[in-house]
Amino acid sequence: MERTLINSVSHHISKEVLIKGRIINLRKMGGISFVQVQDYTGKIQTVWGKEIPAKMGDAVEVIGFVKKDERAKGGYEIEGNEMVVIATNIEEYPFDLSKPKLNLQLTTLLDSRPLSVRHSKVQAIFKLYDILLEAYETAMREEGFTEIKTPKIIGAASEGGANVFKINYFDKHAYLAQSPQFYKQIMVGAFERVFEIGSVFRAEPHFTTRHVNEYISLDAEMGFINDYQDVMKELNKTLVKIFNDLTKKGGKYLKEYDVEIPEVPNKIPSVKLSEIKEIIKKKYKYEISADTDIDPEGERLAGRYAKEEFNSDFIFITHYPFSDRPFYTMRSKENPEETYGFDLIYKGMEIATGGQREHIYASLMKNMKEKKVSGKGMEFYLDVFKFAMPPHGGWGMGSERIIQQILNLGSVKEAVLFPRDVKRLSP
Amino acid sequence: MERTLINSVSHHISKEVLIKGRIINLRKMGGISFVQVQDYTGKIQTVWGKEIPAKMGDAVEVIGFVKKDERAKGGYEIEGNEMVVIATNIEEYPFDLSKPKLNLQLTTLLDSRPLSVRHSKVQAIFKLYDILLEAYETAMREEGFTEIKTPKIIGAASEGGANVFKINYFDKHAYLAQSPQFYKQIMVGAFERVFEIGSVFRAEPHFTTRHVNEYISLDAEMGFINDYQDVMKELNKTLVKIFNDLTKKGGKYLKEYDVEIPEVPNKIPSVKLSEIKEIIKKKYKYEISADTDIDPEGERLAGRYAKEEFNSDFIFITHYPFSDRPFYTMRSKENPEETYGFDLIYKGMEIATGGQREHIYASLMKNMKEKKVSGKGMEFYLDVFKFAMPPHGGWGMGSERIIQQILNLGSVKEAVLFPRDVKRLSP
Repeated sequence: MERTLINSVSHHISKEVLIKGRIINLRKMGGISFVQVQDYTGKIQTVWGKEIPAKMGDAVEVIGFVKKDERAKGGYEIEGNEMVVIATNIEEYPFDLSKPKLNLQLTTLLDSRPLSVRHSKVQAIFKLYDILLEAYETAMREEGFTEIKTPKIIGAASEGGANVFKINYFDKHAYLAQSPQFYKQIMVGAFERVFEIGSVFRAEPHFTTRHVNEYISLDAEMGFINDYQDVMKELNKTLVKIFNDLTKKGGKYLKEYDVEIPEVPNKIPSVKLSEIKEIIKKKYKYEISADTDIDPEGERLAGRYAKEEFNSDFIFITHYPFSDRPFYTMRSKENPEETYGFDLIYKGMEIATGGQREHIYASLMKNMKEKKVSGKGMEFYLDVFKFAMPPHGGWGMGSERIIQQILNLGSVKEAVLFPRDVKRLSP
Repeated sequence: MERTLINSVSHHISKEVLIKGRIINLRKMGGISFVQVQDYTGKIQTVWGKEIPAKMGDAVEVIGFVKKDERAKGGYEIEGNEMVVIATNIEEYPFDLSKPKLNLQLTTLLDSRPLSVRHSKVQAIFKLYDILLEAYETAMREEGFTEIKTPKIIGAASEGGANVFKINYFDKHAYLAQSPQFYKQIMVGAFERVFEIGSVFRAEPHFTTRHVNEYISLDAEMGFINDYQDVMKELNKTLVKIFNDLTKKGGKYLKEYDVEIPEVPNKIPSVKLSEIKEIIKKKYKYEISADTDIDPEGERLAGRYAKEEFNSDFIFITHYPFSDRPFYTMRSKENPEETYGFDLIYKGMEIATGGQREHIYASLMKNMKEKKVSGKGMEFYLDVFKFAMPPHGGWGMGSERIIQQILNLGSVKEAVLFPRDVKRLSP
């Protein structure tokens, strides 16, 4: 007998089918057992008037009769005839996976990820993540971006210097890339528009709810722009598409968290960093010093301002000071102490950083000098600016933070399958 | 005036348009200049009766009149009126990017990748690669696989031990993942079918035309299989789809290399390792010792046999000896010295490795003991087999090798944008 996938069972009403899957719920009432089975296409209730050989969590084969029943979810269930245990739990689950909520401490949740990921609320996170990846790829391709893969092992800790992991590379040292920045810019010279979905590594020694030491960055870089606003427009367009897809395909997963995805404005409000600091000070009595980035509390208040003033979950903050941005950021023509760099805040947390880059070789050299960046080991990057690089810009976006913010998760680590932090290297 | 993308110019015949892009060819004949311009959507010829301010390689804006001309590629060209140089080469290209072939040594090609990737033949490689990535993602999703991202920094050099890069991880040591093997197997317990596209790292000290130390692996893992043949069938189906997409969307890039993609058989021929060794010995007088993997020359001859005997570019080799496969490979029921592990050979080179995995806890322990694998640091993986893991299997496929073999590239490094080998850490 051929296997029927659970999402096709409805095509076999009043017929016998064979399904395979895991028992994710099991209740007995009177002499009747109600056994919920899940495969990769869905879940279904099977009903048994006799003893069954399996227990909660087992992997089973079920032969049964598909019966219309208005009380059942989806309008049908399977009357079980035969059950074969394919694989069984030789220990009991350390927690009850059939309860609607797991209620585990974050540490326990992550330590036991191989099992906690079998819970439907945890699965919902990573099903949404899957949709997010597909949505980003699709949106980028529709906009003419070419997908690239660039090296994660690099010869020089070039971009920032600090916060970089060191590797033993044969008889030399190497480093783990903090971003694909240099490579994606180089590739603008060839394909004009490129994107990458890849691992990035940050040796930041912080324990926070918003940092992990390894994450998946959604990068893009585009050429022949008029200015940094073209980059923001493109990112805005991309987010509209992504959030549409998440709403359309992710409904049942969003429901697990009782959240609805708001529409992304077609024009996300935008404010200068210096201005938002003033606003936050005036409106919310919170002061951030003039020369630095906005801190997490400042981001939260910027998000609040966006909601109150524009009814938007998103807000761009622009014109970060040159002192606070990497040397390759283009400086503002009006005020060279400011740059055409921006952050995107979603529900009060930064989810993306981007900007226009300096594409004129002489200006790049000048910026490096001012920042005291030696340029050693990054000649391959610098030299490309001798060869007609068009005006360009792009962004890096934290994929897991998007999911964290959509589902209002307490920590970004909940949105990473197997997160890495200062202490966590396993599972 | 709004920018017109080059692939939309045909909608503006007998009108004036503004295009932006890079000059990729420039010829003068009589008083006429023929200037080919490329943007991210295509190439077009612009024709000038007057002096132009730009040279080969420059990034320009062109305003001109779209004219039907049967002699032109695509049936139209642009009569140039105005050209503005957006960015110019301040040095000459070190090689002629307008020639049909670059003819560079591999070392020079790779050293100068930031510029050599601007050549149309090199671009073709990475445009095909882009199509490959999209095709794999699409095929996997169509088959119900969930995309996952798993950590590349791992706490223990668990899988093989040798050939692994060591990292300084705060006050500890960590390692770079050689594959997502353990994680994708764990995830079968949650989603039944998962795939990953991610970086893998191999500290192999070899210089060959088929190895790099960092590459992108196309992984998949699936549960509730009947046997290893289900895995091979799924991989076969995936390859049919991928190669269809490459043919459909990659025509002009394949043309650059004068290759045509053969159809993938709906049933790729399959032969046991012990048998193919016999065949190769008998047919081609090449002997491989009984207890080892097939060597590169053996793979080449297996590919030749597949072509001669089955007119297939592909052949599965199955039943690798347990001595030659990792401890998690399922052993054959008929002969426990053999496994349900397989390789896939394409045009005489291994492009994928896969098999059925051991899913019974006790058997896994036995296999480890026999292999003298301690299990230290991989408890999170081993423990999941106490919890009803269904029969499962999967594969890892070298993305860059597929492109290498399709285009008959001399080295896999040509198919990696910025390859890493023992000596190469830059660009």
